[in-house]
Amino acid sequence: MPELTRSVLQFLSEHDIGVVATERPDGLPRQTVVYHVLDGEKILISTTHDRAKARDVERTGRASYAVVGPAKPHPQVVVTGPARILREGIADATGRIFGRITGTAPDPPLTDEMLAGMNRVILEITIERVAAASYLQES
Amino acid sequence: MPELTRSVLQFLSEHDIGVVATERPDGLPRQTVVYHVLDGEKILISTTHDRAKARDVERTGRASYAVVGPAKPHPQVVVTGPARILREGIADATGRIFGRITGTAPDPPLTDEMLAGMNRVILEITIERVAAASYLQES
Repeated sequence: MPELTRSVLQFLSEHDIGVVATERPDGLPRQTVVYHVLDGEKILISTTHDRAKARDVERTGRASYAVVGPAKPHPQVVVTGPARILREGIADATGRIFGRITGTAPDPPLTDEMLAGMNRVILEITIERVAAASYLQES
Repeated sequence: MPELTRSVLQFLSEHDIGVVATERPDGLPRQTVVYHVLDGEKILISTTHDRAKARDVERTGRASYAVVGPAKPHPQVVVTGPARILREGIADATGRIFGRITGTAPDPPLTDEMLAGMNRVILEITIERVAAASYLQES
């Protein structure tokens, strides 16, 4: 099994999009394409509390995340770990994610109150296992 | 729910890499980055019969597949459906997939016998449901 090396964290930090997989109630994986930011050894994804993937995570407490580089040989990382839905203290992370999507930081800066009004939450995955790590540049 | 339109099939046909998700025995999604080819409304992936994702599919009979375009706004398709492992009549599809990986068609052409000796199988997903289809060009 690959380890959570600096190269893996650097790859996850430098890329901004991936595929999150959660467990549907019937057990089939539910895959969604999302933007992410890295915070230490945590993957942070912005979503709304009524989205199916958020409900999956609240039910199961875990998720998988896959990131693939756009050019051959397609560097790639897949991680899994415990996951949870955060509703407070999420303004900074959400602002960083929105900045990656739009190219500019939100102005005025986001607040938890604004995000609560938009039903926005953070889906946080703590990296516990590196299921795959291939074709990464050594850092 | 999006439909399986010509644009969706064209996008899946034009892209060659994606993330397949199967169900591990403990229920957690198992994500793997793979090359694929499209055959009608089926996603074909080359793997070996002893790989965990092949065993997952033999146990559960279903899978999810996600494809993301490399450039913003990141066109994307996620499909799910019944899945199975094929051991015969797989030489043509495997040759097409190897050609996508290496850039040249295998020479001499592959045969089922050669592939059996390499334990290679095809993981086939029949597209039953389009879970997501965004930012596709109209065809």
